[in-house]
Amino acid sequence: MADKLYGGIEAGGTKFICAVGSSPDAITSRVQIPTTTPEETLANVIAYFKSQPPLESIGIGAFGPLDLNESSATYGYITTTPKAGWVNTDLLGVISDALAVPVALNTDVNCAALGEQLYGAGKGLSSVAYITVGTGTGVGYVINGEIPTARLSHPEMGHMVIPHERKNHISACPYHNSCLEGLASGTALQAFWGVPAEQIDDDAAWEEEAKYLACGIANTIFGIVPGRIIIGGGVMAHERLIEDVRAQVIATLNGYLQIPQIVDDIDGYVAKPSLGDMSGVTGALALATRHTN
Amino acid sequence: MADKLYGGIEAGGTKFICAVGSSPDAITSRVQIPTTTPEETLANVIAYFKSQPPLESIGIGAFGPLDLNESSATYGYITTTPKAGWVNTDLLGVISDALAVPVALNTDVNCAALGEQLYGAGKGLSSVAYITVGTGTGVGYVINGEIPTARLSHPEMGHMVIPHERKNHISACPYHNSCLEGLASGTALQAFWGVPAEQIDDDAAWEEEAKYLACGIANTIFGIVPGRIIIGGGVMAHERLIEDVRAQVIATLNGYLQIPQIVDDIDGYVAKPSLGDMSGVTGALALATRHTN
Repeated sequence: MADKLYGGIEAGGTKFICAVGSSPDAITSRVQIPTTTPEETLANVIAYFKSQPPLESIGIGAFGPLDLNESSATYGYITTTPKAGWVNTDLLGVISDALAVPVALNTDVNCAALGEQLYGAGKGLSSVAYITVGTGTGVGYVINGEIPTARLSHPEMGHMVIPHERKNHISACPYHNSCLEGLASGTALQAFWGVPAEQIDDDAAWEEEAKYLACGIANTIFGIVPGRIIIGGGVMAHERLIEDVRAQVIATLNGYLQIPQIVDDIDGYVAKPSLGDMSGVTGALALATRHTN
Repeated sequence: MADKLYGGIEAGGTKFICAVGSSPDAITSRVQIPTTTPEETLANVIAYFKSQPPLESIGIGAFGPLDLNESSATYGYITTTPKAGWVNTDLLGVISDALAVPVALNTDVNCAALGEQLYGAGKGLSSVAYITVGTGTGVGYVINGEIPTARLSHPEMGHMVIPHERKNHISACPYHNSCLEGLASGTALQAFWGVPAEQIDDDAAWEEEAKYLACGIANTIFGIVPGRIIIGGGVMAHERLIEDVRAQVIATLNGYLQIPQIVDDIDGYVAKPSLGDMSGVTGALALATRHTN
């Protein structure tokens, strides 16, 4: 008898990664689909899964905010996203109707945290947070292999308010003047510095970026105190950024916390994802395996 | 046979509240002891409990940071506290040695959240956060009646970094220039405005205070999304402050979150403690009942 197969989707602001496998760490097919309009993107996602053998279930990790309240009329929607064209998109409904399988949904960063905790840089730790710095900025966390549920909605730490010292301030977040995503996402870097993040070579820009990300990490530590913080996303590809972020985290904490796992091993504590760009889709597949009929 | 008795201590920066009862909601004796030096304060605490009938156990909710790692050489200590004279105080050891009973320790705000979740304004909710604004500022949270443990230490959200627009900046936190406690605690109000919080009648001061607290609450929502946020502590006695805080929370979120329990009922969502100043000691007694031999 053939193995049961599951589908995973990481729905990101730049691309959707879709994969099929018999387990989150046994992916046998994957594809990347550019994020354009919801109609076009989801049609391509559905066409990919229709080309695959039958699936038991699909897990989706998506940018948000998402409506994860099962009793809500807009359950499974992307709601007030700053991403143009995607406000009030029925992500879960469109996929599950077209493919007629059970679909589980959570945030991209919660899924990435789950993937890393089960199979990557969070293995063996009781809790792990995952921060992505890409088109948007988000934070997810997993405790003992589970995405916490006893709360009104999923975390939205990408929108935490943090300090900045800009005179001519440009926030890339349409909702908040001084939030982590508005200041530190790839979209924010492009809005403020005038060129895409990968073309910025001004040291001052990256120094400032490291400070914002360190504020986000420090506040994540103060709130969750996870066993490790894993930081991924396209912007983190910039050379030396993670080292600058680590130094700024230590400067921001400034001796207040004496937790050896953090202050004596900041290189291990603030880590890159060991699954590379597959953290999210791995976690999405893990969601799927827990969500069959 | 007489009921078993338990002891509870809320160890605060201004006073210690000590209580004895057969259950957290059946307190039969209580006393307030001013917080002076560790030696004098703890001697008074010990004398009070020695004057009571024998106890099964004691629970303590204390200002922090605390070392809650049972395998640490300084387990049960207050560590890097900004509170003068109290750095590296062996709180748990001194109490348990003198009274020869099992002693459980957690933060004052985690205990207050626990007390309110079990017996107060958090009853029936799956999660609740408690913010105190007094000598210091802290945030604790409880999920399904338990203080979460799968993390490196207790939360320290009183030290989250938040924005401010002060020109001549005074932070009352010796570690951080721009943290919630350094900007919004009673100590911070007195340091910046020159008189104790209860004597400040400048509207601008309270408007600013409401903004800082709203940043703290918004970041707590973005991180934890608890079922309710309960806000207590001496500074909250200022008339209208809680109403200003609620308005500033809505302004800070600015339409991004569409969670009805928050945005449609902010008066219910940001609530005062229904146990008054007994939230912490009630939660400490709950800790005690779970920590007998």
